[in-house]
Order: sequence, then structure tokens, then C-alpha cells
Amino acid sequence: MSKVEQYITSIPDFPKEGIIFRDITTVLGDADGFHLAVDEMTALLDGVEFDAIAGLESRGFLFGAPMAYNLHKAFIPIRKQGKLPRATSRMSYELEYGMETIEVHRDDIKPGMKIVVVDDLIATGGTLEAAVHLLEQLGAKVVKVVCLLELKGLHGRDRIKTCPAETVVAYEGK
Amino acid sequence: MSKVEQYITSIPDFPKEGIIFRDITTVLGDADGFHLAVDEMTALLDGVEFDAIAGLESRGFLFGAPMAYNLHKAFIPIRKQGKLPRATSRMSYELEYGMETIEVHRDDIKPGMKIVVVDDLIATGGTLEAAVHLLEQLGAKVVKVVCLLELKGLHGRDRIKTCPAETVVAYEGK
Repeated sequence: MSKVEQYITSIPDFPKEGIIFRDITTVLGDADGFHLAVDEMTALLDGVEFDAIAGLESRGFLFGAPMAYNLHKAFIPIRKQGKLPRATSRMSYELEYGMETIEVHRDDIKPGMKIVVVDDLIATGGTLEAAVHLLEQLGAKVVKVVCLLELKGLHGRDRIKTCPAETVVAYEGK
Repeated sequence: MSKVEQYITSIPDFPKEGIIFRDITTVLGDADGFHLAVDEMTALLDGVEFDAIAGLESRGFLFGAPMAYNLHKAFIPIRKQGKLPRATSRMSYELEYGMETIEVHRDDIKPGMKIVVVDDLIATGGTLEAAVHLLEQLGAKVVKVVCLLELKGLHGRDRIKTCPAETVVAYEGK
């Protein structure tokens, strides 16, 4: 397991009994931890050929933006509905209670473009699945999904079918 | 004026007549533009002694996170109400219509800590003013506010009274 793990705070029985909440803000709050997290996520792209990093609002921005900067790539924000100023394409998906919609600027995606999708966490995989579909629908090829953390017990990885997904730290439970 | 300006998209009469909307997502969408923006914002911290960068959700994350990474500093997220998992302190402030509340993790701020606040834009200055007050109330010293862009006609800078504010690109109007 990566040394990044020591910077993650685990809060037992939160938000409900039996769930261990993994808090990544304590990674950000430590200069060494944040540096290490970005470096290890960036290393997961060694040898990967791509054009841009698409980061998911808003914790995906925290890791995706420094990765894009370091690798001198464009950064494409994927945001919740109503936040992006130009013409967008949308994808809706189900949450535990109700629906959520994400958007991307249509002119950010050129057909054949190779994109890496970045977020903080693979949990149920719903948002990541929607993001990958949205980008593919616009003609992009998602070459990899990179997250800091994975909760393996939620099997979110199974919903990302068209490209490999890699994470720095993986927990067995939910 | 900085070369970053050429990557900013100006949309006249949006959202209403007489307003020129400045869209910074086209800066992100160009690898050179994004790199230059982060570098020029980082250069505004030359010789500034500080402990952490506090970034405002969510566009402040896009610039503040790579700046924190580059300068090997901690990153403190300032988020809208209800998004942070540990104990928070809050500050409410008035918007054109209604109120907004921002939060920070209480244990992220140590008394005497020197903090740089980063966002994309100085507009009316309401959110930045609230962020500076919130951090100062917890005993931090905000040593500088750094934004990519400023709309001088809105006089937001006048609301940041306790520290200098610097921007890469400044427009005269609103």
C-alpha cells in the first residue's frame, strides 16, 4: 500500500454504522501528503499517451489540475448542471436518492481526443461511469481513469468497462 | 497585460446586456494557457512567506492546487456549506439574491498560520472578503489574495482590507 494511506483519515461508523468514511482532506492538509498523492497519481500515467485530463467537480479538480499542469496537458472540467458558461453536453445518472446530471463544454471535446478522467474516489462508480459515457458520446477515447482512492467493497470499478482504472490506495470494505 | 489574456473568452451581453462575461475555462482548455496562468499566479508569491494555500470551491481549486503543489505547501479547501466531513467553522455573506455560507475545517487552521487565499476571479469581492474574515477569525494571518482575473469596475478589491490582493489579468469594466 502507498505511503499516501497514512495521510487519509478513517472515520468509523460515519455517516452510518458499519461504514468507514475515508477523508482525503487530511492528505491535502499536509504538504508532503499532497505532493506524494499527486506524484503517485501522475506516475499511474507513465507511458500513457493522451491529450487532456478531465477532472470531476470538485475534488477531482484538486488532483487533476496539478496532474495536468505537471504533464503540460489541457484540463477539462466536468461539472454539475448549470455551472459551465458555454454550450454543454449532459449525462444524467442515478444516485441512491434521485438523479444527478453532469456536464462538459461541447467544444472542449474533439473527436478522437484521448482523455484521462481524474477523481478523488472510486466508490459506487456512478459518477465516473457517467463521465466516461459522456466523453465517449462526444467522440473522445477515455484511455484511463485515475483516482486517489478506491472502496473495493462497492465494486465501482465494474462500471468502468471501456478503459483501465487505477488508484493509489485501495480499501477492501465500503 | 499578461499573455494569459489571449486564452480568456469574453462573451458580450452575457448574462445580461452591458455585461461582458469573462470565461476562464478556455484558459484551462489549452495546455500552454493553463501552464502560463498557474506560473504567473505562482510568481505573485515570490518572496512571500506562508504556510498554506486556501482555495475557494471550486474554480479556486483549479489554480490553488497546482500552486500549492509547486510551492510544496498544504492546501486548505474552503467549501460551500455541508461539503466538509470534519468539524467546521462558517461565515455567511450576502449575495445579490439571498445569503451564501462557506466553511473551513477548524483543525486545518492553527493560530498564527500564514495563509494565501486563491480564487479564479475578484468580482464583487463578497466571497473573498468572507473567506479572509473566516480565516482571520480562526487566528490565521492572510498574507495575500491571488486571483487570475479582476473586474475592476466592481471594486471587489476594496473589500479586502487586511492584506494585498494581486491578479494576473485585470479588466476595467464589470
